[in-house]
Amino acid sequence: MGDPVTISLDAMGGDYGPSVVIPAALQALASNADLKLILVGDEEILRQHLQQANREPDERLLVKHASQQVTMCELPSHALRNKKDSSMRVAINLVKEGMADACVSAGNTGALMATARFVLKMLSTVDRPAICAILPTVGGHAHMLDLGANVNASADNLFEFAVMGSVLASAIDNIDKPTVGLLNIGEEEIKGNERIKEASRMLADSELNYVGYVEGDGIYADKAMVVVCDGFNGNIALKASEGVAKMISQKIREAFSKNILTKLVALVAMPVLNSFRKTIDPRRYNGASLLGLQGIVIKSHGGADVLAFNTAINQAIIEVRNRVPERISEQLEALLAGQRNND
Amino acid sequence: MGDPVTISLDAMGGDYGPSVVIPAALQALASNADLKLILVGDEEILRQHLQQANREPDERLLVKHASQQVTMCELPSHALRNKKDSSMRVAINLVKEGMADACVSAGNTGALMATARFVLKMLSTVDRPAICAILPTVGGHAHMLDLGANVNASADNLFEFAVMGSVLASAIDNIDKPTVGLLNIGEEEIKGNERIKEASRMLADSELNYVGYVEGDGIYADKAMVVVCDGFNGNIALKASEGVAKMISQKIREAFSKNILTKLVALVAMPVLNSFRKTIDPRRYNGASLLGLQGIVIKSHGGADVLAFNTAINQAIIEVRNRVPERISEQLEALLAGQRNND
Repeated sequence: MGDPVTISLDAMGGDYGPSVVIPAALQALASNADLKLILVGDEEILRQHLQQANREPDERLLVKHASQQVTMCELPSHALRNKKDSSMRVAINLVKEGMADACVSAGNTGALMATARFVLKMLSTVDRPAICAILPTVGGHAHMLDLGANVNASADNLFEFAVMGSVLASAIDNIDKPTVGLLNIGEEEIKGNERIKEASRMLADSELNYVGYVEGDGIYADKAMVVVCDGFNGNIALKASEGVAKMISQKIREAFSKNILTKLVALVAMPVLNSFRKTIDPRRYNGASLLGLQGIVIKSHGGADVLAFNTAINQAIIEVRNRVPERISEQLEALLAGQRNND
Repeated sequence: MGDPVTISLDAMGGDYGPSVVIPAALQALASNADLKLILVGDEEILRQHLQQANREPDERLLVKHASQQVTMCELPSHALRNKKDSSMRVAINLVKEGMADACVSAGNTGALMATARFVLKMLSTVDRPAICAILPTVGGHAHMLDLGANVNASADNLFEFAVMGSVLASAIDNIDKPTVGLLNIGEEEIKGNERIKEASRMLADSELNYVGYVEGDGIYADKAMVVVCDGFNGNIALKASEGVAKMISQKIREAFSKNILTKLVALVAMPVLNSFRKTIDPRRYNGASLLGLQGIVIKSHGGADVLAFNTAINQAIIEVRNRVPERISEQLEALLAGQRNND
């Protein structure tokens, strides 16, 4: 047991709303004795769902009413202006007001980022926020950022992302100085652009454990524990990876369902295939961190199921226990002070 | 049988040089009665390899001496300046001189692109060359470009890439108007940058079969037959995809070799797994096209084996038979004329 942790959940967000959030919340409460959750959303709907689950709200499971909902396709600017009582906004407000230590939402990423930034504000040392996710690799996992908070990133931004990713990886993996790489392409003559080259020089001069450039395939080959890139490339790399994984799953399924013989083989092979799938199951990697804010916000995949949403709640608990925003702020200040002394 | 086709092969290029190129050449000759090949490289070494394969040079299999070799790590500028008698350069010269209809090389991509551009020159209507490869998808395959010829690309360049990819896909898949998509990211508020938005407007106004934006996962989900992007994003997406595919293969192998029981299951499942692997076997997709040049140059993967290099030779034959550079030039001219009439 550690200090008590309180997390607000946007219970209406994501493709399945309370029907996923509430069972995941109950699981998280059962496995974390010092956890307290605040379900935010339409009170009547939430109470109905709790009733169905035979659970009364109590001091560890509060319900906070919010009259509105941000839809999955809503423009962030629209949500900011017109959804001041949305479950997402109220859940983030609770973090701002100190009633919750972190917030988890499976809602619209753009709206979540815009709202979190508006309500919680950025850390004073950080120029731009970044979205960081955990990806499975051959040897374990890697942290990659930015995955889409920014289309472009300056060398300074990439440097900040590296610091934020390093602090997060250090907290999650309990490692002092995680290795950090910059996503780049391989052809010598055209290697990278000026921003990436400049960021590489800054990282090489810093006290981070910088290991140099990482190519797209290196993400999955454990070339670095933290892979840094701009949001455009990060999003492209992540989505392409998801696309390949899906295609491969489908081709495996097709191969095993070709005829009666292959279907029999599938029966025998199923347990092995399932144990393989488990190692790259995206549900076990769910929960992207919105970094650079004065507060902890975890974005769950919109289509997350109970297991996946539960993973996102646990991600939030780890970040709270490890004071991730404070540590990002401290480390950036120390690095900036070091740079000033060098100048 | 069609018209005779002559292809020059950089027989010293790639990780395995003549030990892969020569067997692949012999296979290609055996299966294409109207094919003629010119092996370019160190004559003595090539003759030794031919002797080992019990094959004499004849009118369908010529040997052309070249005293130098471009190494895999050599800077393109260095190769251009100092390797004027390299197997790569001489093979491309043969295309320039009209002795060959196309050239295939497994050598250093940057050097191949620089040399091809220098020797063959660009098509007058094309500003920048692009590298186009074929990728397996759920439903078949897609063509993607640029994969690394350019770090940046203007809206005009992306438009050109779309035209070139469309012509190539049309030639290879024998389809009149292949669908064309622009690689982009999904978040509404930050969707794309100005170059991509401008390219999208140009494509929507053109006579190409433009279907709009494609996200990273859409590449593999048959969202478009031709996926257009700048070389940086293309390279990142391609390498990340390769990385995921490799990781998945390894995890499957690990799952099946965990213990004696899973190894027995592997024996039963092997034929099915092999038939699955065949559908995404990169050797069956080997041979990237260097587009925008006044001539046909195919880049084989450096680590290509005999089957893979043979695929690249066949790719060259298809492009010769379909007069790909001429058709790119014609289509670009027609589209540019159309634009002028609209102005």
